[in-house]
Amino acid sequence: MIDPYDDTYFMKRALQEAEAAYEKDEIPIGAVVAIDNKVIARAHNLTETLNDVTAHAEMQAITAAANYLGGKYLHKCTLYVTIEPCQMCAGALFWSQINRVVYGARDEQRGCIEMNTKLHPKTKLSGGVLSEECSTLLKRFFVEKRNLN
Amino acid sequence: MIDPYDDTYFMKRALQEAEAAYEKDEIPIGAVVAIDNKVIARAHNLTETLNDVTAHAEMQAITAAANYLGGKYLHKCTLYVTIEPCQMCAGALFWSQINRVVYGARDEQRGCIEMNTKLHPKTKLSGGVLSEECSTLLKRFFVEKRNLN
Repeated sequence: MIDPYDDTYFMKRALQEAEAAYEKDEIPIGAVVAIDNKVIARAHNLTETLNDVTAHAEMQAITAAANYLGGKYLHKCTLYVTIEPCQMCAGALFWSQINRVVYGARDEQRGCIEMNTKLHPKTKLSGGVLSEECSTLLKRFFVEKRNLN
Repeated sequence: MIDPYDDTYFMKRALQEAEAAYEKDEIPIGAVVAIDNKVIARAHNLTETLNDVTAHAEMQAITAAANYLGGKYLHKCTLYVTIEPCQMCAGALFWSQINRVVYGARDEQRGCIEMNTKLHPKTKLSGGVLSEECSTLLKRFFVEKRNLN
């Protein structure tokens, strides 16, 4: 039987959030947090809108998920994010003790793999889900920015 | 002439914030952001109160300083924090492009030096200011916690 609630399903939700960021002229990155096949938090990058370097999609999603759960640890949760988390977001995920982190496309310059940021020993990291769609949206954003300047 | 606004002056302000966290039964870490000899943001750890692993003193101070300045970059600022920043906070400081980061006591287990988190090339990091006072408050907190449990 096909599981309708697979990683692709949740990454599509994260991609919708990235598209919402794109519409606001924000670097288009989106994230959702899921538990038991249910999305409990969704967020997109708002660094420009809020004038705040800490307003990455993942940071907001972690805060929103903890708020939903009524506790700061995300032990049974999975975070889906369209682009591999940076040092800051991976550091926040470390503290959250989250069960899984799934990213879409790699960030080979500023991502936590290249930067060697440590996740919690309990956390499983995987990627490459809808990678093409996630990176295409990001590339389109930067190409358009360059053409405007 | 003695400069009244030296690193010790600002670290004392950060330590006052750490004491405010201690009074709230939070892990006692405090931070301030200064520019031109003036404190423009102050914060203390609120992870328990807010049920949020992202509510470290530095994160809140970065957000508050950007809010004060009306821009997300903290180019001319110095952040004073009583304990060496973790991966998450150092990652946020990276994005802020802050001029200086000054910590009180080292965190040899979870601090950004041990974890090898990268700060922005523009950022100067130094520490050891009121180190004894900063670490004593933290140790007192954990000793009291152990005795209660």
